[in-house]
Amino acid sequence: MTERQTITPAHRYRNNDKLIGIGNEFWDMSERHGLAGIVADYDAGTGVLRATEGHDFIPAGHEFVNFSCCSYLDLDSHPEVIEGAVDALRRYGVLDHCIARSRVQIPAMQELEISLGELFGAQVVCSIAASTATFGLLPLIASGHLGNGTRPLMIFDKNAHVSMANVKPVCADETEVVTSRHHDLDFIEDMCKKYAQVAYVCDGSDSLGGYAPVKELAELQDRYGLLVYYDDSHSLSAYGERGIGYVRTHHPAPDERTITVVTLNKAFGTSGAAVVLDGQSKQTLRIIERFGGALNYSQLLDTASVGAGLASAEIHRTDELTTLQNRLYGNIELFDSLVHTDQAGSTFPIRLVPMSDATVIEAGRRVIEAGFYVSPVFFPIVARGTAGLRVMMRAGQTEQQIRDLGKVLVEVGARPAGPPAAEALR
Amino acid sequence: MTERQTITPAHRYRNNDKLIGIGNEFWDMSERHGLAGIVADYDAGTGVLRATEGHDFIPAGHEFVNFSCCSYLDLDSHPEVIEGAVDALRRYGVLDHCIARSRVQIPAMQELEISLGELFGAQVVCSIAASTATFGLLPLIASGHLGNGTRPLMIFDKNAHVSMANVKPVCADETEVVTSRHHDLDFIEDMCKKYAQVAYVCDGSDSLGGYAPVKELAELQDRYGLLVYYDDSHSLSAYGERGIGYVRTHHPAPDERTITVVTLNKAFGTSGAAVVLDGQSKQTLRIIERFGGALNYSQLLDTASVGAGLASAEIHRTDELTTLQNRLYGNIELFDSLVHTDQAGSTFPIRLVPMSDATVIEAGRRVIEAGFYVSPVFFPIVARGTAGLRVMMRAGQTEQQIRDLGKVLVEVGARPAGPPAAEALR
Repeated sequence: MTERQTITPAHRYRNNDKLIGIGNEFWDMSERHGLAGIVADYDAGTGVLRATEGHDFIPAGHEFVNFSCCSYLDLDSHPEVIEGAVDALRRYGVLDHCIARSRVQIPAMQELEISLGELFGAQVVCSIAASTATFGLLPLIASGHLGNGTRPLMIFDKNAHVSMANVKPVCADETEVVTSRHHDLDFIEDMCKKYAQVAYVCDGSDSLGGYAPVKELAELQDRYGLLVYYDDSHSLSAYGERGIGYVRTHHPAPDERTITVVTLNKAFGTSGAAVVLDGQSKQTLRIIERFGGALNYSQLLDTASVGAGLASAEIHRTDELTTLQNRLYGNIELFDSLVHTDQAGSTFPIRLVPMSDATVIEAGRRVIEAGFYVSPVFFPIVARGTAGLRVMMRAGQTEQQIRDLGKVLVEVGARPAGPPAAEALR
Repeated sequence: MTERQTITPAHRYRNNDKLIGIGNEFWDMSERHGLAGIVADYDAGTGVLRATEGHDFIPAGHEFVNFSCCSYLDLDSHPEVIEGAVDALRRYGVLDHCIARSRVQIPAMQELEISLGELFGAQVVCSIAASTATFGLLPLIASGHLGNGTRPLMIFDKNAHVSMANVKPVCADETEVVTSRHHDLDFIEDMCKKYAQVAYVCDGSDSLGGYAPVKELAELQDRYGLLVYYDDSHSLSAYGERGIGYVRTHHPAPDERTITVVTLNKAFGTSGAAVVLDGQSKQTLRIIERFGGALNYSQLLDTASVGAGLASAEIHRTDELTTLQNRLYGNIELFDSLVHTDQAGSTFPIRLVPMSDATVIEAGRRVIEAGFYVSPVFFPIVARGTAGLRVMMRAGQTEQQIRDLGKVLVEVGARPAGPPAAEALR
């Protein structure tokens, strides 16, 4: 019998061997130490989680506060948000009416699009998830159909979230795709000089605590017609007036060359996503709706999520939002007064507490034993020497919880805040 | 100034110029004739839609029954399904707890996975949508991580739904990808002889009314270790004992070489999707959970959808499911007794009523004017000479509605059922 053929992969844009080879070891080690694979009941009243299954280190019934949850304003458990979901379910009498929206739709998702459009001062198209919207829209940008008709060179920031990076091979079938260094404005400008059209894909606010150079990019947009696709999921609601997020707060004049996708699942507190647009023609909006992949499959944002979203949008229109934002900022400041991180002083709710590669897993374990979940990141997920515990602040965490977390973090090796340590002064 | 560079696309797996060039014309024409872009309130009690916006042909307030909705058993408006959603919202107090499930999860989605696992006699992983699961899983199949470790030649059936076809370029970065003719068993067998490993991607039940050759493929699976990825969304609940669908009904012994994704959004009546697996090791299940793209993003199936799903699964365990299936089959038979289609006699709830290219749009318009929505398909979406009106049957349509639809279809040019027309006998 002849030997059957095996295949050598291209691996131009992705490499599962490497990703899984590296990542699975990380996850296994995290899980062995009780820091992954946790199932826990959530008490929406107190914000406390209670492990339902026992584990080598974490017994069933162990209670802890989640310092790694992205619901930065705790709107997810706001009674009005939950009742909004219930109301919409009862009002519409279905979760969804199963048919492509470009054919027939019940008015549910449109209701939310109109409300969010008014809230953001923008055109809004909803989606079941930010990743779904991204997978639908980036190929339209690649082919020039969402843009000025000219196929752009597509520059993906090397730190762009995996939900965007995963779409590179698809875009590369419609245009040319390159990956740039992080926020490399000079490179982007060089490419704008070289190519008839350029699109840049990056996070507006990224999951390790940074913001995009929105103003500098806006200058390139003005000068060269650069199109920018932002995922600003981490700053929606948590940042800016009425919670409009980082990109819209700092962009001097967003127009059809800026496309921002935001999840509704983090600080906004509900489920689904919104594509936030400006100045798009009716024809382009129809192309998005008809050809944006799953944006036109027969599953729309369900009515429960729509109802929760309408309620959350209403809260965004009141002083309660400012109160919650200020409570979040207060909690961030309190944490910064206790534990040293490179992110200290920013309004961004994520902090990476540096730990050594040798101690980070053990440190994370001791922190959850003390009643707080923070997620460890370490080699091989990040470079050696950059390990740490990722801490996410929320409006609903109490002063006592934050002080107790700060205390245990320092006990397990975090540097306390305050004057720089002696070795840093040498 | 030097001319700035433009880009020539690869267009190996997709071509937006062609897709949108062809498709947009189709949609524009449909919309001009009142057959697309319809917004209508749904009365869950009567199943009647009422247009909220006026249109050239369809006035605001126009009432019609949707014969193009995939909720084949009308479980979407079942009071227990809606109350299940409400109960879960109240019980969990959040729509979601925003963190990757491989770190910490509330037990909601697991509850549904356990229930569906018992219902299907399988391992179940839930997802927010079938397209999301597909985008997460196909690349893992491509790299051999979901499979026996050997990178397969991936054969996509040429009719595979766009949610699968769209992932070709991504898979092609991890292995070799080809497109086969529709259900071309000979080609698949030839490739099984040539390649160390082969995976075939197709619909179990497709949106124009056909079923996959599940038994014949099972023989190839046995003989060559062929892996098959099915999307069986159109037959879940509507087909088979306890609604287990076409693939699981006809597969003699599904094991780890058969992976089936099903939406919960059609006949199941809720929202989200299920990946149905057999005999996968705990390690492989962890890889799916950790590296299956959005399956590990911090947005799980929301608690409302989980609660609705639990209620629908309960209905699947009772005689009520059989009653609903029989009502659907009765409606399909009644329709077949009125209007001739090539699909007549099958249990599949979709019928394509042939029309000429010249008359199909006008016919669709007259049908909606008469109070029934059916979706037109015509050139350039399908080949010239194969135009038609797509009709979807549901359990909840009344005898009167079906007879009235049959009457108007015949009036606008459909061939009545009965003895073959004279020209067919020549």
